[in-house]
Amino acid sequence: MTAFPLSHVIESQQFDRDLLETVFRTADQLKDDLYKERRFANALQGKIMASLFYEPSTRTRFSFESAMLRLGGSVITTENAREFSSAAKGESLADSTRIMNGYADVIVMRHNEAGSAARAAEISDIPVINAGDGAGQHPTQALLDLYTIVDAFSGVDNLKIAMVGDLRYGRTVRSLSYLLTKYENVEIVFVSPPVCKMEGDIKAYLDRNNLAWREETDLMTVASEVDCIYMTRIQKERFHSPDDYLEAAGKYILTPERVQAMKPNAIIMHPLPRVDEIPKEIDDDPRARYFQQAQNGLYIRMALLYLLLSK
Amino acid sequence: MTAFPLSHVIESQQFDRDLLETVFRTADQLKDDLYKERRFANALQGKIMASLFYEPSTRTRFSFESAMLRLGGSVITTENAREFSSAAKGESLADSTRIMNGYADVIVMRHNEAGSAARAAEISDIPVINAGDGAGQHPTQALLDLYTIVDAFSGVDNLKIAMVGDLRYGRTVRSLSYLLTKYENVEIVFVSPPVCKMEGDIKAYLDRNNLAWREETDLMTVASEVDCIYMTRIQKERFHSPDDYLEAAGKYILTPERVQAMKPNAIIMHPLPRVDEIPKEIDDDPRARYFQQAQNGLYIRMALLYLLLSK
Amino acid sequence: MTAFPLSHVIESQQFDRDLLETVFRTADQLKDDLYKERRFANALQGKIMASLFYEPSTRTRFSFESAMLRLGGSVITTENAREFSSAAKGESLADSTRIMNGYADVIVMRHNEAGSAARAAEISDIPVINAGDGAGQHPTQALLDLYTIVDAFSGVDNLKIAMVGDLRYGRTVRSLSYLLTKYENVEIVFVSPPVCKMEGDIKAYLDRNNLAWREETDLMTVASEVDCIYMTRIQKERFHSPDDYLEAAGKYILTPERVQAMKPNAIIMHPLPRVDEIPKEIDDDPRARYFQQAQNGLYIRMALLYLLLSK
Repeated sequence: MTAFPLSHVIESQQFDRDLLETVFRTADQLKDDLYKERRFANALQGKIMASLFYEPSTRTRFSFESAMLRLGGSVITTENAREFSSAAKGESLADSTRIMNGYADVIVMRHNEAGSAARAAEISDIPVINAGDGAGQHPTQALLDLYTIVDAFSGVDNLKIAMVGDLRYGRTVRSLSYLLTKYENVEIVFVSPPVCKMEGDIKAYLDRNNLAWREETDLMTVASEVDCIYMTRIQKERFHSPDDYLEAAGKYILTPERVQAMKPNAIIMHPLPRVDEIPKEIDDDPRARYFQQAQNGLYIRMALLYLLLSK
Repeated sequence: MTAFPLSHVIESQQFDRDLLETVFRTADQLKDDLYKERRFANALQGKIMASLFYEPSTRTRFSFESAMLRLGGSVITTENAREFSSAAKGESLADSTRIMNGYADVIVMRHNEAGSAARAAEISDIPVINAGDGAGQHPTQALLDLYTIVDAFSGVDNLKIAMVGDLRYGRTVRSLSYLLTKYENVEIVFVSPPVCKMEGDIKAYLDRNNLAWREETDLMTVASEVDCIYMTRIQKERFHSPDDYLEAAGKYILTPERVQAMKPNAIIMHPLPRVDEIPKEIDDDPRARYFQQAQNGLYIRMALLYLLLSK
Repeated sequence: MTAFPLSHVIESQQFDRDLLETVFRTADQLKDDLYKERRFANALQGKIMASLFYEPSTRTRFSFESAMLRLGGSVITTENAREFSSAAKGESLADSTRIMNGYADVIVMRHNEAGSAARAAEISDIPVINAGDGAGQHPTQALLDLYTIVDAFSGVDNLKIAMVGDLRYGRTVRSLSYLLTKYENVEIVFVSPPVCKMEGDIKAYLDRNNLAWREETDLMTVASEVDCIYMTRIQKERFHSPDDYLEAAGKYILTPERVQAMKPNAIIMHPLPRVDEIPKEIDDDPRARYFQQAQNGLYIRMALLYLLLSK
């Protein structure tokens, strides 16, 4: 494998098309090996990953920890990292990071404040991986989303992708939109209630990078024309009244009727957890890829840990 | 070892006498190996157990995790699994289970709602072990209880067993009663205050399976005639007044006088934790087996993990 | 290495000068090996450490767990050990300890009540290491503090050491004072506000052991004469008024001016976390050793685990 140029994984913007290919090729290779020869089963033996979660996120934490263990590494973990910098003690994130440098070989950090991972990386001699920092970034989620598309279509060029639901507050769709500009002739259709439209900064970014996009308010109208429907949760709290919510939700639920309208080889994605926006009966449709997508998180995180630690 | 027919361990009813023998023989073998050759020290190397505890139970969790580590496997763990399906996110147990299938090779689940483990097992491609689901089952506790009896008497046939204390709400005595019907000529004496009697469903089950039982209200009257006294906690909350409680507790405490009345090779069991029902001075009596019983939990869980994962 | 005479590590008083040398020499050796040959990478393979934290202390817990993993051992862990002996269940520390004996090879215990570790050690067949028990002891902290001094000066004899800040409630300075009496011709200068003076018991102990000490109230006056400044946090809650606090804090902050007055090869220590008493700009001064000191915790804990478990 080629040398990996990154010291830390903090934001999607660090990845260009070549680097994405490196990560995805490594993920392919580690995934393949996991079910066959297990040549990488001890690749990170003797390495320690510190899971430093300032807020709990069992799913993300387990995905990283499983990735580390699958490569033969070991883990020290807390969902209680806030205690580090408790009001009573008042330690800075910088000090906590420095101390962790003595105990681990890589830090996976989840934090409630945007910019935290970048501040930790500034001071850290060991790799820091951002596992989500508040309203900021969640780059490994963006990578696994893109990897799921690559996996399904053997590439991303020329695809038409619908993003559905709460696009305004959805960290995942923002990051994915950003990464899609690295590819050729991609089109995005944003499908959302008026109150949850994709924000202007992303639209401007897409324009500057010549990625064609348009907005719709009804999922049914686009279901048949796209290669991928990326669903997100619609959260009740965003709406002014329960009636508004019900009306909106009705248009953004992926009903069997809407699935039936989809192309035969299109795919359905969702960052999970879902609530009602994808009914359970869709799970058995071969186009449903959201559980595979969650599983892809394992391969992507294995790839990043491997690339960062086996240099 | 013979092939293990179970895919999941959800309830005591899954075990017939042959299967119990398989589990106990495997436990014997792994226990013996643990202190000698350590031939099984890497038996589950590369396998990951997910401890998914929706409510904390440090004792049970440690027992399972130690069992997995003793066999060379590794562990990802949370006592905070409820966060998975938090009100805010509303994810179903089925979805959580599916996602865990991607990260682990076996799920050990503790849940506050009866039936949870069975629902998880329905959807899971990897083994699910029930580590207690609310008022439902706690099958590994039942197995380790029975194993402790088998260990002491080289069998269960022809034994007379007293179950003492809160029999109405005690999950362990219910499960153990059930399993005892698999053996020949066993007798049970239920010793409890009137408000905590064993429920009718178990008594009816014992009748249908020709297991002789009777009820008593005073421990002293049966101490001398049984091979095993299985003590349980009596919880103050169950009684109408403090006086009722004190009176009841006085009859169900295993005082030194009552121990002295026991047969020389009888045994004393308790699922632990205990409060006052077994005074500390009993601990050094060779008949006291409750700490060995807790330790047997390790061997039984090693056996189950081994049988489920090394197929 | 020589046989290690201790079965448990409960308090500083267990260590005489020879034993300190054994621990420090082992720490040196393991530290050296960690960055070179890794001959000890599997020294504790197959051993299980139980982290039994009755109150969270992520820093201490991670230090111990990293130490165990660096030696090839594995870990079961809880920050929620209080649940073991919850009001509802009422289990004694003795029972919890006995049960842990079945699941682990060494117990690392943090407890809120002084004397807890000693009580656990009394009943435990496996080593118990005290990771801090309330107002009681925190012996591994004392050892790493002393090791940091030994590391810097190749010994402790003939050094003059200032201890600064809250000396009355500071567990670390009390323990370190105790250990310093094991060496020749050491002098201590206690620098604190009048309300936070070192307590009489320690002063009497120093007198009995012929260790020269004096008290000062202003850091500036001693900065230039000592080989080591051991800073501690000053906690606002200790003072009668905010003005009292500000005045006191002003005299006990290690300002650049005060650092400049220090000898060129003196060292600055702090048990961390710090708040304001050492400004960040001091971090790059070669005399600042507090991060190295935290890191030394790893080596000391590796040494203790190795000495206790590889007998």
